[in-house]
Formats: sequence, C-alpha cells, structure tokens
Amino acid sequence: MDIHLHHDRNPHMEEHMKSSDALRDIVIGMSDGLTVPFALAAGLSGAVDSSSIIVIAGIAEVAAGSIAMGLGGYLAGKTEQDHYNSEEKREYHEVENLREREIEETKEFFAKIGLSKELQDNATDEISRDKKQWVDFMMKYELGLEKPDPKRATKSALNIGLSYIVGGLVPLSPYFFVTSPLEGLKISAIVTLICLFVFGYFKSKMTGINPWWGALRVMLIGAVAASAAFGVAKLIGG
Amino acid sequence: MDIHLHHDRNPHMEEHMKSSDALRDIVIGMSDGLTVPFALAAGLSGAVDSSSIIVIAGIAEVAAGSIAMGLGGYLAGKTEQDHYNSEEKREYHEVENLREREIEETKEFFAKIGLSKELQDNATDEISRDKKQWVDFMMKYELGLEKPDPKRATKSALNIGLSYIVGGLVPLSPYFFVTSPLEGLKISAIVTLICLFVFGYFKSKMTGINPWWGALRVMLIGAVAASAAFGVAKLIGG
Repeated sequence: MDIHLHHDRNPHMEEHMKSSDALRDIVIGMSDGLTVPFALAAGLSGAVDSSSIIVIAGIAEVAAGSIAMGLGGYLAGKTEQDHYNSEEKREYHEVENLREREIEETKEFFAKIGLSKELQDNATDEISRDKKQWVDFMMKYELGLEKPDPKRATKSALNIGLSYIVGGLVPLSPYFFVTSPLEGLKISAIVTLICLFVFGYFKSKMTGINPWWGALRVMLIGAVAASAAFGVAKLIGG
Repeated sequence: MDIHLHHDRNPHMEEHMKSSDALRDIVIGMSDGLTVPFALAAGLSGAVDSSSIIVIAGIAEVAAGSIAMGLGGYLAGKTEQDHYNSEEKREYHEVENLREREIEETKEFFAKIGLSKELQDNATDEISRDKKQWVDFMMKYELGLEKPDPKRATKSALNIGLSYIVGGLVPLSPYFFVTSPLEGLKISAIVTLICLFVFGYFKSKMTGINPWWGALRVMLIGAVAASAAFGVAKLIGG
C-alpha cells in the first residue's frame, strides 16, 4: 500500500518526495528487521536451552530476510519501471493509431470531473495538439501512473536490506552476551520494544497520523508477534 | 511500491481492481511465506543436528511473520484511510475558507496539463460550482489520493496473514517427516523452488511483465536468500 507522505505545496515537492522515499525505505526495513527476528528469538527462547542456537537462527533469519526484502524491493522497482515503459509505449501507439478512441477517453475524463459538454470538447482539442503532452496526461490522470525514478530500484534495495540488518541485530545482540535464553529475552524485549516505539513514532510522523498513537501501535505489533511466537514454540517444543 | 495491475477499459474496472487486490495480497503473503521460512530452515539445516529445532524455529517464524505482516497490512490500510479522511476534511475546509487559493490551484492543474488561459478559467469555473465535485477532483488529481475501501484493511490483514502461513508450511513440511536436516533441506528446496516459480509466474502475469522471466526471478530470490542463510549459519554455527 503506497501512502502519499507529503501534502506539500512548495515547488521543491519532488525533492522532498525523493528524500522521504529513502527515509521510508529505511524505516520499513528497520521496523521489519526489528519485529521478525525479535519474534523469532522470543519464540526460540521459550523452546530451546542455549542462546547459541538463537544467535544462529537469528542471524540466518536476518541474512535471509534482508536479501529477500532487498531483492524484493529491487524487483518491485524494476517491475514498476517496466510497467510504466510498456504502458507509455502503448499510449503512444494508441494516440497515433486509435486517435478517435483516445479522443473519446480524454473527453470522458473531463466529463467525469464535471465539465460541460462544450468544455470537454475544447479541452480535449487543446490537449491533443501536442502528442507528448497528451500521452503524459493520459499516463498520469487516466492510468494514474507516475514516472518512476530509474535509480529507485537499486537505492531501495540497499536501503531496505541494510536497514533490515541493522534492525535485526538489535533484538539478537543480548543473546550474544548471556547464555540463558530467557535472560536474553528479557533484555531483548526491553531494548527492542523501545526501538519499535521510536521507529513507530517517526513512521507515523511521516504519514501524518498521531505519532504517539502510531508509536504504540508499532510497538504492540512487535509485542503481539513475539508473544505469539513464544506461545506457539513453547506449545510444540517446550 | 504500489503497482497498478490492470489497464482495463471496461466499466467493471473497479470490481476487477478489488478482486485483484485480494489476489495480490495472497500472492504477496504466500511468496514471502515461502521465501523467509525456507531460507531460515535452509540456514539452520547447515548448523544444527536435529530437524525438530528447525520445525520449532520455522513455526515460530511463521507465527511471528504472519502476525507482523498481517497486522502491518492492517495498519497500513487504516493509516491510508485516516490520511484520506484528514486530507478530505482539510480540502473541504480550504474550499470553504481559502476559496481564492483553491481556485488558483485548480487553474494551475489545468495549466499544467496544457490548456489555454481561457479554458483554465472556464473549466475552473464549472468545476468549482459543486463543492463535493470540486473536493473529489482535488483529492484525486491534485493530491493523487484514491478513496480507500473501508473494509480493505481487515481483508488485507487476513489475506496476507493466512497466505503467509500456508506459504510457510510448504518449506517446513519436509522437516516433519525426516530426522536429518540436510535430507529435509533437499526435499524442502525442490518443493519450495517449484512453488516459488509457480507464484512468480502468477505474480508477473498480474503486473503485466513476462511471466516466465518473472517466475525465474522470484525463484532466484528464494534460492539466493536460502543459500546466503545457509552460508552464514554454517560460518558461525557449523
């Protein structure tokens, strides 16, 4: 689900969007990285005797999760790009070869937003004079597609993957230092829930919802996921 | 990243979008559910002696991952809804109290798509006669926000969470039946990579890219993530 982060009316809007894209990737990667390895470690803490198995499983999860999420982000970006390019090619083709139908569709757009018959015709007439302008219009307002940043896929993959690793090391780190899994879990829970709260705060600020309520929600997801994992693992393993 | 799945010109478009939303949730949940537990199980197979630890860790991961992803989907949906509602309220306020500025912004929209000064004025004049029509227009085309389906958050959470569980049980199931982790890994790899290929195929079909190439890419992500997890876990644990 893609949420528009800014409601900004200044001319630097596009720049703002780009930096917030990176920020969003980092927050997403990091809060997922905090949540899943935390829950996995919590689950194992209820079922195994030694911290070392938790460290191994946790690091395997972090490696797997960061690669899966990072590559996933990369492919999603590439797919968006491919999709945009193929639709754009198609619109150019249609504007050249199915001009009448495209004229009708453009009129329909103006009808839908509430213009009179006369203005529908005049506006369509003006807009269809320039082929590039017409296609750009159709791409954005008929199909709802924004031109993607070509470097976005790679940047997104790195941001998400690395943030997942950084996030994932937080809940695992206590297990490096203590031998009792339940002792590790206590420290891990305190540290991770604080971090989830902080990230939930910034994540909510970015999407414009109440940051304190948002922080609480993100922290609760982590706590619920970890408790469920603990319960399930205890049930089958402990 | 939100990718528009359909470029459909029939009047049932909206219905199509809704069913494909559900399909997309299922495919996302299931392919993530296949990938991460698979990679975790692969990682542990290189580092521990008994299948039972892999089963416990895997089920803990599936419980944690399905809750984290499901609740994550729910909150994303709710946030989108909250964001839409607060922006809509704001637009109504602005249309009533900052009428001149909104008129300017509406004219700017028509200028940007390429209409002449005269049509900008006329179109703005017509559109601003009806308050609801005007706000709807501003929401959709100035802010780029679609009205979210109010039940979407809950449906999305269930679809993603349950698909993650179904997907996650695939790579884990072989470990239920064999005691040697490496034996389990062989069967798990074969079964999971086939499933990833099949899901990659459908996922790509939905986004309109070459399905065979897409299937290969999804399968490769799973294989790379699992290999990395295996390598890392072997390095520190085995």
